Amino acid sequence: MQTKTKISPMVIKRLPRYRRYLADLERRDIERVSSGTLSEIMGYTASQIRQDLNNFGGFGQQGYGYKVADLRVEIDAILGLGEPYRIAIVGIGNLGHAVSNYLNRYLDEFVIEALFDVNPAVIGTDIAGITIRNVNELDAYLAENTIDIGVITTSKEAAQDIADSLVKGGVRGIWNFATIDLEVPDGIRMQNEHLSDSLHELVYYIHST
Amino acid sequence: MQTKTKISPMVIKRLPRYRRYLADLERRDIERVSSGTLSEIMGYTASQIRQDLNNFGGFGQQGYGYKVADLRVEIDAILGLGEPYRIAIVGIGNLGHAVSNYLNRYLDEFVIEALFDVNPAVIGTDIAGITIRNVNELDAYLAENTIDIGVITTSKEAAQDIADSLVKGGVRGIWNFATIDLEVPDGIRMQNEHLSDSLHELVYYIHST
Repeated sequence: MQTKTKISPMVIKRLPRYRRYLADLERRDIERVSSGTLSEIMGYTASQIRQDLNNFGGFGQQGYGYKVADLRVEIDAILGLGEPYRIAIVGIGNLGHAVSNYLNRYLDEFVIEALFDVNPAVIGTDIAGITIRNVNELDAYLAENTIDIGVITTSKEAAQDIADSLVKGGVRGIWNFATIDLEVPDGIRMQNEHLSDSLHELVYYIHST
Repeated sequence: MQTKTKISPMVIKRLPRYRRYLADLERRDIERVSSGTLSEIMGYTASQIRQDLNNFGGFGQQGYGYKVADLRVEIDAILGLGEPYRIAIVGIGNLGHAVSNYLNRYLDEFVIEALFDVNPAVIGTDIAGITIRNVNELDAYLAENTIDIGVITTSKEAAQDIADSLVKGGVRGIWNFATIDLEVPDGIRMQNEHLSDSLHELVYYIHST
C-alpha cells in the first residue's frame, strides 16, 4: 500500500462510493467482482475503476476480478474507518435532528457525544439519550472533552462563530451543512455538504429527455 | 457544444461543483479565472480541469483563462438549469422538513408543489404556504398534477412503495434520501443521497493526522 499522501483528492472522493458498493456485494455474499461489473453498477468506466484501485495496489487479477471483502477492508483502512470518531452537533433544528438520527441509525463508527442549540424550547430535551445543551456551553464543553468532528447545522449567520469555537476546542474536522464558506486554519479539514450538487446532477439526466 | 450524451457521468458529477465555484467568483465580480486558480480553490489538478471543461468546448485561452460568467452560463445550459422544476416531497419528518427549507431558501429554480406525510400530527399543517397532504392522496394528486422530481424522505420501509407511486404518477427523476436501493424502470433517474460518503471522505483527511 502506498502512503496516503500519494492518492489524489479525486480518488479519495470516490473511495466512499466504492466502499458502499462493495459492502452491498458483501451483504449479498458475493466474493469476487470484476471491474466490468463494478463499472455497470457504479457508472464509472472499467478502465477508471482499475486505475482508481491500482492507486493502493488493488487486488484485481485478469479473469478473476477483485476479492470483495479484502478490497472493502483495504478501503476502510485507507479511509481510516474502524476506530470510533466522537462527534458534536451544533444546531438541532430539523436538519441537525435529521443528521443525529442518521448517525445513530446507520453509522456505528461515529458516536454522538454532545448536541448544542440556541433555542430554549429544545435545550434540555434529548435525542437518543443525549441531552441538548445550550450553545453558550460549547467552549467550556470542548475544554473538558475531546471531540474529533464538529457538525455545523446552524443558520449561516451563526456558522463562522461556531466553527471558530470548534477549532479552538480542538476538533480535527468540521462537517458543514450551513450554506456558507467558513474559514478555518490549515490542518483542520472542512467538509462542506452541498445538497444542491446532487439535485443539479439529477436535473442533467431528466433535462429534455 | 457536443451533444450531452458524449459527456461522461464522472464529468457530469463534477459540473455542479464547477458551477458553484464559478457562481461564487461571479458574486465577487471576478471576470476571468485560470485553470491554475480553479485548481487551487477546487482541489482538482489544473490538467483535470482543462480536460473536464474541454468536454463542452470550454472558453479557456492560454494566458487568459476562462470567462467566469460565460462558463457558468454554459454549465447551466448543459445541466438543464434555467427552467423551473416542479417538486413533490414525500416524508415530512425532520429530514423532509430540512430539505423543504433548503429548497425554499436557496434553490429558486425548484418549486415545491406538494408535500405528503403519513403522520396525522403534521397532515394539514403547512411549510411556507404548502399544506402537507395525506400520503394516501399521492396517486390521485399525481394523476391530476405534473411533478418533475419526487423527493423521498420517508423511512426505508416505505420508500419503494412511494417510488412506485411517483413513477406511476409520471415523475422523471427521484431524489432519494432513504438508505435503501430502490428499483425504478429505465428512463427514470434515481439520484441517491448518501451523506455517509461525505463523512467518510472527511475521516480520510483527519485520520492519523
